Amino acid sequence: MSPIYLKEDEVNNLITVSEAINILENATIARSEGKIWNQPRYRLPIRNGNYNFMSASWPEKNIVGHKSYTAGKNGASFHNMLYGCEGEGLLAIIESNRLGQIRTGAASGLASKFLSRKSSSTLGVIGTGYQSETQIEAICSVREISKIKIFSRNKEKRELFKQKMTKILGDRIIISNSLDEVSDGIDILVTITNSVNPVVTSEMILEGLHINAAGNNSWMKSEIDIEAFNRFNIIVTDDIDQSKIECGELIRAVERGYFSWDKVIQLDSVISGSVQGRKSNRDITLFESQGIALEDLAVSEFVYKRAIQNNIGLQI
Amino acid sequence: MSPIYLKEDEVNNLITVSEAINILENATIARSEGKIWNQPRYRLPIRNGNYNFMSASWPEKNIVGHKSYTAGKNGASFHNMLYGCEGEGLLAIIESNRLGQIRTGAASGLASKFLSRKSSSTLGVIGTGYQSETQIEAICSVREISKIKIFSRNKEKRELFKQKMTKILGDRIIISNSLDEVSDGIDILVTITNSVNPVVTSEMILEGLHINAAGNNSWMKSEIDIEAFNRFNIIVTDDIDQSKIECGELIRAVERGYFSWDKVIQLDSVISGSVQGRKSNRDITLFESQGIALEDLAVSEFVYKRAIQNNIGLQI
Repeated sequence: MSPIYLKEDEVNNLITVSEAINILENATIARSEGKIWNQPRYRLPIRNGNYNFMSASWPEKNIVGHKSYTAGKNGASFHNMLYGCEGEGLLAIIESNRLGQIRTGAASGLASKFLSRKSSSTLGVIGTGYQSETQIEAICSVREISKIKIFSRNKEKRELFKQKMTKILGDRIIISNSLDEVSDGIDILVTITNSVNPVVTSEMILEGLHINAAGNNSWMKSEIDIEAFNRFNIIVTDDIDQSKIECGELIRAVERGYFSWDKVIQLDSVISGSVQGRKSNRDITLFESQGIALEDLAVSEFVYKRAIQNNIGLQI
Repeated sequence: MSPIYLKEDEVNNLITVSEAINILENATIARSEGKIWNQPRYRLPIRNGNYNFMSASWPEKNIVGHKSYTAGKNGASFHNMLYGCEGEGLLAIIESNRLGQIRTGAASGLASKFLSRKSSSTLGVIGTGYQSETQIEAICSVREISKIKIFSRNKEKRELFKQKMTKILGDRIIISNSLDEVSDGIDILVTITNSVNPVVTSEMILEGLHINAAGNNSWMKSEIDIEAFNRFNIIVTDDIDQSKIECGELIRAVERGYFSWDKVIQLDSVISGSVQGRKSNRDITLFESQGIALEDLAVSEFVYKRAIQNNIGLQI
């Protein structure tokens, strides 16, 4: 069979955020069983940016593949390629801007399902870009969230974001006018910015909070102030090897002696139950999301199978 | 502009072996000037085989990209993906079985141009598979080769290969019936087998010989007997980092103390002239060809540009 090519609008109709959370949960359990090989992202220089590549293999599901993209000041466009493991060769090329947004949201949803307090009802979000939408959707699908406080530096962007998200999630969105305001009285916090300087300080973190730090995948960037690392009862990351390359705030905190890498727990250990995530309602938990290849592989496989079932995509 | 998809038969009409040699020469010089980033191949496990990935970036030419493929007992199929460096995103997806055959031949052609004696007229070839064809074509395009001696274990395959190559290169192909016979009185030797056990022994190597060892890109495999490493005046490889991962015979020879990695010269140093390759007609020279990403990138760029000029390829 010849491979198929899937375009953004086709992909968007083939998977929901809540489906993606289940898919990532299954993939993460498979990883904890040693059934998935995940290769950290690497980057090669281009002009004013990077070429990015990350791959994973899941032989039990008969799939292997990668995501590749160039990213720089002129934007980014993402493609996932999916292969069979039995000599089938290339199965699909998938435009993956939307798919990346969905899987990144789903990763925070999954982490929140296992790390946040079950009674969590108020969510704070710092950053109102493209990626924030699926973060909120995903967390709302794992917890009964009645109030969503949003903040970003640009007042106009906050307003537009509120309008957009109110259409999707109803009348639960509240604009905050400062970092102090957005972090007050929340159970879960999402930071999804490109900030080079920390936006989350120790003072903003109350007992019981779960934080998803999802904006940071460059060692240059940092969303959480280094002093805050004294506050966390557990630090979880999607992939330790990749964090050592690109998670700026963990790299800096380790270098400065706040903790060592053996104290950082990989998400699959929490989800499989080999490591207990939250031990009490007073624990403060952190999930550092870089975005990893096995997430791309798992959602790509789902999208590919559904496309084939429904005869969607261009045969090439 | 939307990306194009190029199929095998289209690619075959867009580039010749001798064009590929010039392209690789230019790319190799660019590498010696620090203008190309080349990432060694890595492999992830699939069932009964591997998923393979290798990438390179050449910002000066505004291109970056990769080759990916699954390979195992059910065969392999290759794709190159090409991106712009200025936010153009994906430019082309290129089916690359033929292109890989051409670039691998061209690499041996290029190495032979710089390492073999100028007067070389007799070529010996061990291995008569798919990859041998372009090896011979490439060497014939850099040296005045009047006699091509071929050997492989399977007699029928040797006969068929002779018939096929005679059609392309005329009446210059001679079948040898043993390793001793094929190595007798030759100026250049190509080994392009999947052999786990060495096919080239020290006794087969005469003064003045240049060898292209092009069959070996797994640390499990070895085409040259370890004792022969005492004979070489220079050992050249397409990429030292990649050789340390996958060049079985170099890895073993270094481990056993025949030489150390700092004695292995990267091809771009020879081609740029920073290291002298052959110093006399009596020197014995070795080129270890793994096949590297910058070769794929360079020929892909050429094929892509020519396809666009001629309006070839499927717009996706």
